Amino acid sequence: MDTIGKSIPRIDALDKVTGRAAYVGDLEVPGMLHGKILRSPLPHAVVKEIGVKKALKLPGVVAVLTRDDLEGLDPFYGAVLRDRPFIATDKVRYQGEPVAAVAAVDLATAEEALDLIQVEYDELPVISDTVEALMDDGATVHETNLCNQSGYEWGDVTDAFAKADHVFEDTFTFPMVYHYSMEPHAVIADYSNQGITVWSTAQHPFLVREDLARMFGFQLHQVRVVVPYLGGGFGSKSYTKLEPLVVALSKVAGRPVRVALTVEEAFKTIRRHAARCTVKTGVMNDGSFVARECLIHLDTGAYADNGPLVANRAAERIMGAYRWDNVKITSNAVYTNSTPAGSFRSIGAPQAAWASESQVDIIADALGLGPLEIRLKNLVEKGEEFRPGRRALDADPATGLRMAAQAIGMSLDKEPEDQGSALPIKTGRGLGCNLSGVGSSATSTAIVRLHVDGTVTVFAGTTEIGQGSRGVLAQIASQELQVPFEHISMVSSDTGVVPYDRSTGSSRSTTMMGLAVQGAAKEVKDQLIELAALHFDCPPEELSAQGGLIIRADESVAYGALIEEEFGARAGELLGRGYVTPRRDNGRLRQSPAFWEIGIAAAKIEVDTKTGVIRIPHYVSVADVGVAINPQQCEGQDEGASMQGLGHTLFEEMVYEDGQLLNPNLVDYKVPTFADLPANLETQMIENHDGPGPFGAKGLGEGGIVSAAPSVANALFQATGVRIKDLPLTPERVWRALRDAAAK
Amino acid sequence: MDTIGKSIPRIDALDKVTGRAAYVGDLEVPGMLHGKILRSPLPHAVVKEIGVKKALKLPGVVAVLTRDDLEGLDPFYGAVLRDRPFIATDKVRYQGEPVAAVAAVDLATAEEALDLIQVEYDELPVISDTVEALMDDGATVHETNLCNQSGYEWGDVTDAFAKADHVFEDTFTFPMVYHYSMEPHAVIADYSNQGITVWSTAQHPFLVREDLARMFGFQLHQVRVVVPYLGGGFGSKSYTKLEPLVVALSKVAGRPVRVALTVEEAFKTIRRHAARCTVKTGVMNDGSFVARECLIHLDTGAYADNGPLVANRAAERIMGAYRWDNVKITSNAVYTNSTPAGSFRSIGAPQAAWASESQVDIIADALGLGPLEIRLKNLVEKGEEFRPGRRALDADPATGLRMAAQAIGMSLDKEPEDQGSALPIKTGRGLGCNLSGVGSSATSTAIVRLHVDGTVTVFAGTTEIGQGSRGVLAQIASQELQVPFEHISMVSSDTGVVPYDRSTGSSRSTTMMGLAVQGAAKEVKDQLIELAALHFDCPPEELSAQGGLIIRADESVAYGALIEEEFGARAGELLGRGYVTPRRDNGRLRQSPAFWEIGIAAAKIEVDTKTGVIRIPHYVSVADVGVAINPQQCEGQDEGASMQGLGHTLFEEMVYEDGQLLNPNLVDYKVPTFADLPANLETQMIENHDGPGPFGAKGLGEGGIVSAAPSVANALFQATGVRIKDLPLTPERVWRALRDAAAK
Repeated sequence: MDTIGKSIPRIDALDKVTGRAAYVGDLEVPGMLHGKILRSPLPHAVVKEIGVKKALKLPGVVAVLTRDDLEGLDPFYGAVLRDRPFIATDKVRYQGEPVAAVAAVDLATAEEALDLIQVEYDELPVISDTVEALMDDGATVHETNLCNQSGYEWGDVTDAFAKADHVFEDTFTFPMVYHYSMEPHAVIADYSNQGITVWSTAQHPFLVREDLARMFGFQLHQVRVVVPYLGGGFGSKSYTKLEPLVVALSKVAGRPVRVALTVEEAFKTIRRHAARCTVKTGVMNDGSFVARECLIHLDTGAYADNGPLVANRAAERIMGAYRWDNVKITSNAVYTNSTPAGSFRSIGAPQAAWASESQVDIIADALGLGPLEIRLKNLVEKGEEFRPGRRALDADPATGLRMAAQAIGMSLDKEPEDQGSALPIKTGRGLGCNLSGVGSSATSTAIVRLHVDGTVTVFAGTTEIGQGSRGVLAQIASQELQVPFEHISMVSSDTGVVPYDRSTGSSRSTTMMGLAVQGAAKEVKDQLIELAALHFDCPPEELSAQGGLIIRADESVAYGALIEEEFGARAGELLGRGYVTPRRDNGRLRQSPAFWEIGIAAAKIEVDTKTGVIRIPHYVSVADVGVAINPQQCEGQDEGASMQGLGHTLFEEMVYEDGQLLNPNLVDYKVPTFADLPANLETQMIENHDGPGPFGAKGLGEGGIVSAAPSVANALFQATGVRIKDLPLTPERVWRALRDAAAK
Repeated sequence: MDTIGKSIPRIDALDKVTGRAAYVGDLEVPGMLHGKILRSPLPHAVVKEIGVKKALKLPGVVAVLTRDDLEGLDPFYGAVLRDRPFIATDKVRYQGEPVAAVAAVDLATAEEALDLIQVEYDELPVISDTVEALMDDGATVHETNLCNQSGYEWGDVTDAFAKADHVFEDTFTFPMVYHYSMEPHAVIADYSNQGITVWSTAQHPFLVREDLARMFGFQLHQVRVVVPYLGGGFGSKSYTKLEPLVVALSKVAGRPVRVALTVEEAFKTIRRHAARCTVKTGVMNDGSFVARECLIHLDTGAYADNGPLVANRAAERIMGAYRWDNVKITSNAVYTNSTPAGSFRSIGAPQAAWASESQVDIIADALGLGPLEIRLKNLVEKGEEFRPGRRALDADPATGLRMAAQAIGMSLDKEPEDQGSALPIKTGRGLGCNLSGVGSSATSTAIVRLHVDGTVTVFAGTTEIGQGSRGVLAQIASQELQVPFEHISMVSSDTGVVPYDRSTGSSRSTTMMGLAVQGAAKEVKDQLIELAALHFDCPPEELSAQGGLIIRADESVAYGALIEEEFGARAGELLGRGYVTPRRDNGRLRQSPAFWEIGIAAAKIEVDTKTGVIRIPHYVSVADVGVAINPQQCEGQDEGASMQGLGHTLFEEMVYEDGQLLNPNLVDYKVPTFADLPANLETQMIENHDGPGPFGAKGLGEGGIVSAAPSVANALFQATGVRIKDLPLTPERVWRALRDAAAK
């Protein structure tokens, strides 16, 4: 009955490969209409008039939603600042912002009706550069262009720079990228005077419930957010997105409505923050870091979403996994006229690590040190309280970094690659390393039902977004309750039927929801022991649970038999509750972060100097998982993160021109395919059984994306001597850099 | 915050009057097909060949189910005996038995395909008379025609009859009647290798789950039975009915399928047992009863369903609410070639009360006693242990009977009506009285969720069949948890999401599920007190819950604030569990029945002697409810039961000829309409706060149907001197009886 550490196949595998899995786009709600959104063609404009009469006259059109339908509700929402109306009110702030929405009997009619809506705009100047935006001399997206400023400061960087042997200053840019999960956003909303039911592609259904209740004037028990199968999130479906618009459309239509976005519309819904990071680092001759000052500009787009949190996290992460006595970090989230930016796998980290870890190699090269050598000299150590007031480091970055370096054949000392070879293909090795304090709140609850046949249903509000949470949580229940894995079913995200879970993200589910499930399973087990004590007429201490039986010396009784005894028939069931709160577990979870997640990568690359094409024969990611509850799924998560990181490293970039997004599709926006897989893509897992989660587990899933870009860029430098400070490392950009370097 | 005793409007009222309420027939499951059933035209025949090739060739037909598709599953089911295959195997046993089923892309195609299925039958003799059926000299429906025999015997009836001053023997018949709930049976089934989901019009979804798991080889966690809005049950949707057939059809089709029965098909699915009861009673000159011997034949139709339970219950109930020293009751459930009979509001009781209570008036008349007088002389009294080993009588029939008699102006002494009047309209008053030990098992569980805004969701597996259970259970939660009624939502029958409840029937839900909900609410309250003890830093004993607050002297804290404190944010929730088992509550529920339900009625009628038409100016039903949690709903339930009773009293009868059902529709089978309402239809409620349920409640809903027929027939006798022993009392039957009497 031991299931921990076993790579049990996914629970939903069969449903998915047979096409039985029903997504929001597959559902039919009785009386459902189909909705389409009219989006602003302009990136920045005052909305003067909206004419909907013609559209309303089109046969089959049931309702048109505009800003004129907002009476009695609050149209504003936002994860941190409530600055985003679900439909344009006074002006539009990015190309693609919803201005009106149509509900009709079918999609074709709804689309036709869009053309009949007349909108008159007054164009405004476009804000697109984050540095210029803060110069206080032009137009603003909101009342100001500074959405949020946060940072860290301790010690005295000015003094430290003065005393340092060397000071390095470099500026790095990171592109706007899009999550490109398989399924774009889709919502069915059913509004009535008594409440709202929503089927949505939502990672955080309980937070959506909270927003909808507030915006539409309901209590929490009246709002139900159901998440059926969901085709990937990566943060793009965090917090509230499309839901309020569809609820309002259902309200004006008086019927349920579905709106399912196209890929282009999803590109115009959410993206990752582009970043411009200037990093100034003071270093002594021996390579020890003494001070770091950074200025970060994050492009948060037209609305804040969780930009302030991203800015804050980038500020923390740009310090890297290093010890600093003097720090001054300023991180600005800046409004521009573009798609709003929000959560994306390891918020703020890839941008910060790109800058920080690229510069570490610049410094190492200047000082004649090896990339591994300079890092080991400055890395924080396990047990160190390197962020004041936060949990002491529970990960071991040095060990992880050594593993990664060894895997790709990089030694401690500097060993420059053979750059003199006449061959057009050059080889290089590079490292990247970062530490993330996960934003994992201790707020999960769960219910376990033990049926009279000894089988189990687990209620856990974690959204299954493809990460395999259902299987892992079932493994935890199986182990704790000693019931075979295949005797367990999972019920996931439906706020109407599963108890509260804060969110699915921040690598938190295995740890936080895992503990809740374990707690609920334990409460069931305790009741079985109580019933067995009556059955055997013995003290509970003599009893234990094993293999679906309660054991007493050489006697045993099956779980189901105990339930039958209690209910007097083959009937009834036992219920267990699990709570995870900061106060429980002797305050074990009160400290933040719940755990530290390392993001370590090592890349061995080949550059074709004639074309600028980078190929990656060997890529290693190291994850500290505490315990791998399902090793194959852990690897899958980490490999996915690596590949997504290689995407923004090599290919991905949303291109804007005059506020117009030029490439919102798979033809013009390239994501990695199987052809781009490193020949040897490897995840190495550290299992020290020291995580705060069940059976010593920690989370994973974010660390793998963090260090992809710097490890490849550092390898590129090792291979060619060329340092590129802007992503992505497209063949064109690499080829131009090589050409420019050769010309010098 | 006191909600007990308040007639709060129904929770589902708005959904129902606006048409938002979605029934099984309204749902759409992705990929769903539509099914139709080919039914046997013959009442009794061997099925020789079934040809489906032509049907399968019809474009749009996806699958045809026959007995050839039963490999790997067990097609037999039945509430007591598993004698019913969901599709004919060797032979058909009643006209309308399913022989094949088609799944097609639409209903029209499925119907067309039925005509293309060729079935070859060998006709067998038809068994239709229950007495002849047991003569052991003819054909049999199953291996025998005696489905079940049960009974009671104590004392020595032979001796007692010999010593009695008078012995009366009469035979009464009760017709086959159909429940005629608004919604016929409907099922959507979705079968996969991993489990089954069924949306069904099921009163007992957890029992259906058990059957489906067994029949199709799944574990309980793999089978989900969902009951959406349901348009009435009255027992017709008890136990498993249409579900296995539709699951099997989905299995062969490889897609979800819906089968929604027509009214005619529902008539051919289930009905109430027709009965023939011979009652022999020994009486002394003063009217005291000394012995009763009865022979009951119940027509259980082609399959047992719960016929054995009905037979047993009829055997008990034919003893009435009287004390007997000598008893011999034999009750036979007899197979015939007709629609199977099963549960129907107060199983076995209307049939038994019809016989018993009619004869009581025959005896009274013969001895010159008043109907009230003879009953009061023989009634059992509150506190009496009148059924050995069972719960002592917790109801007070004498008080109830006096209330009923007084209401219609009947005095203790015999006061014959003025039968000599020359007017064609004659007036009479009659009583009926019975006691039902409810079949209410102590097997319910519930969950209560308290959200962070202080509102509540209650999970209770009671099926809302129109009886108003959701509202009553919400009132119980409201009172116990001290949360306003309108802050509570209910989640009901869905075995996948609500915890176990045995069944919805037997007047059990307010008592049994009510206690479970109360227990779950109390567990939440206890946690609030714990959290408040931390909040105030005081012992829990100083705290109490009132009006959504935890109170300590003159301080208080809101529920939501305590949850926020625990979870460290506006997040989380508290969970409570409620268990009702025979063992809990100090064994309070171990004794059977959970409570005794009286069925007392008094009717004042007018007979038009020229036409035989009976009108009822005044009808009184008395219900002992312990406490009326929602008085209006209690009245509604009891009035509905009265009217349903008046239906089988005056109009209803399924008519068979040669095994063919002649009147399966609303034109030929008359049910009461509003025009048939008694001018004064009254329910009087006894509230002694002495029930075993929450706040002293008992169940109700069945008692009202029991005594309708005898009270009217007894009034008819009072009015005309004519005693009719066969139901229904149609104008034709009454007119013939009057004519025959006048001819004598």
